[in-house]
Amino acid sequence: MLKLFDTVPLAAPVDLGFVNGALDRAALRRDDAAWQSAAYRAADTRVIAICQDVPVMGWNGTAITPHFTVPQALELGAVDDAVFLGLHSGRSYFAHHVAPEAFEALQARADLKLIGMRSIAMQGLIDPSMLSAFGTAKSLLSWHARHRFCSACGQPSVATSAGWKRVCPACGTEHFPRTDPVVIMLAVRGDVCLMGRGPQFPEGFYSCLAGFLEPGETIEEAVRRETFEEAGIRVGRVKYIQAQPWPFPSSLMIGCIAEALTQDIQIDRQELADARWFTKQEVASILQNTHAEGFSAPPRMAIAHHMMELFVQS
Amino acid sequence: MLKLFDTVPLAAPVDLGFVNGALDRAALRRDDAAWQSAAYRAADTRVIAICQDVPVMGWNGTAITPHFTVPQALELGAVDDAVFLGLHSGRSYFAHHVAPEAFEALQARADLKLIGMRSIAMQGLIDPSMLSAFGTAKSLLSWHARHRFCSACGQPSVATSAGWKRVCPACGTEHFPRTDPVVIMLAVRGDVCLMGRGPQFPEGFYSCLAGFLEPGETIEEAVRRETFEEAGIRVGRVKYIQAQPWPFPSSLMIGCIAEALTQDIQIDRQELADARWFTKQEVASILQNTHAEGFSAPPRMAIAHHMMELFVQS
Repeated sequence: MLKLFDTVPLAAPVDLGFVNGALDRAALRRDDAAWQSAAYRAADTRVIAICQDVPVMGWNGTAITPHFTVPQALELGAVDDAVFLGLHSGRSYFAHHVAPEAFEALQARADLKLIGMRSIAMQGLIDPSMLSAFGTAKSLLSWHARHRFCSACGQPSVATSAGWKRVCPACGTEHFPRTDPVVIMLAVRGDVCLMGRGPQFPEGFYSCLAGFLEPGETIEEAVRRETFEEAGIRVGRVKYIQAQPWPFPSSLMIGCIAEALTQDIQIDRQELADARWFTKQEVASILQNTHAEGFSAPPRMAIAHHMMELFVQS
Repeated sequence: MLKLFDTVPLAAPVDLGFVNGALDRAALRRDDAAWQSAAYRAADTRVIAICQDVPVMGWNGTAITPHFTVPQALELGAVDDAVFLGLHSGRSYFAHHVAPEAFEALQARADLKLIGMRSIAMQGLIDPSMLSAFGTAKSLLSWHARHRFCSACGQPSVATSAGWKRVCPACGTEHFPRTDPVVIMLAVRGDVCLMGRGPQFPEGFYSCLAGFLEPGETIEEAVRRETFEEAGIRVGRVKYIQAQPWPFPSSLMIGCIAEALTQDIQIDRQELADARWFTKQEVASILQNTHAEGFSAPPRMAIAHHMMELFVQS
């Protein structure tokens, strides 16, 4: 056992966003229509509401309530999609996609807060275990909104299995929610590591390189391809560190440390505005917000932050 | 560096299927139409051909040739889809989906072999690095065949970027090939490990449990959920071992060793026909095909085999 599990942590870092979810997904209940109906009618059932990709939450002037009772949720607006998220402390949790037409009216209500998912995660506005449920809700509802038609025959498809599947009545094809694996890696060469900034990043903001894993690739092959494509750096060994769901709209970030074998950076200007080597001292100062040139990096809720920390501590 | 990379291998096991691909995907060339056109016309360019999901290969009565020249490939039948796979030894490789109507005529030809992808991989019929390209081709071509229509608006979409993207002329939505992450895990409790057999498995055939990772889950959370759902066993620590592309049609198998915390198996009969604990001696005899009851397990081309071996050696 020691050999098989040496140094493996039991849980993800507590401040990493969208992980350590507390909901039991109770997947075996998804196709039980009677059970689903009873769960939706139960008085203690709660609903996470999202409108135009933005979470809608209760606000009493002091504190946020991240979910609603079913009657409260139904008053927010028409429900375009509903998904059974799972069970927590004996309660059933559902997610509602509120019709986009309701957005302005919801924003005007003093008893509600509409806050983007990134802000919620970065500011730690809701309980970490509930943040995982929000991420799941956002990914699933966004998938429904982008998949109303069967990709095999073009006819309208319908949601089933409590929102975890769509089927096409015309051709019978079943469609399942997407999860797109993304590799995110910190390439390390001795005492320096490779970070870059996308053209859309704020000035001075550096992070790990990242890219979508493609069909037919392993995690390790994707890390090598992306690091070479974006920065011209060859990678040898690849060590998986930690994964993080990233609901923008439905990625799985697969965090890896990569062993850089070469030194000369060749930037792909389509993907990156800059890429450079950073010493441990520099990375430490960036993480502490004391960098001389004011460089910054992703916050603690992002896996990139934790890989940078791991490098500093190595 | 030692701390960051201790015990991490440089490459996947050589006999693991669909990994260690030798093709440079040359992704930056995909949107260069002039380059693509020249590559397709080059005399040394090669084509992997698939018809009705079955690879089509050349056969001279003695040896298999896993690819064709472009003129040879165009004689096989109408081309429903074409994808640029990448470069290898200076040659460009493409994949063709041959129209299904050609299937019977191709089967009748003495100079061709049509062999299913699983058989090719299990019997090691082609070079391992070419097998990775075949897996990529199969996943991409199967994706095109199942995604001819825009899931957002239902109108026909068209392939672009050398087959790595589809766009909808009607609504402008871009669609990218799917890769579906699957967790596959060997749960270990002291000197025994948990394996099961699906209802569709041959009699006496046992393997690691596995299941699709869902939106909003980490790898570790998916391992815990699937192991509990299928066998009622609680899991603590999870250690990632190795990933494997699995082109049936486009999964990424994420192989993990899981620390089982409980003993009593509760089988979900929808998912499994049986699940039980196996000692190291039993697993060793299964891998060596000397098990007293004739039990068998996945071959060396599958990640499950290597995780079983790791357990025996632990």
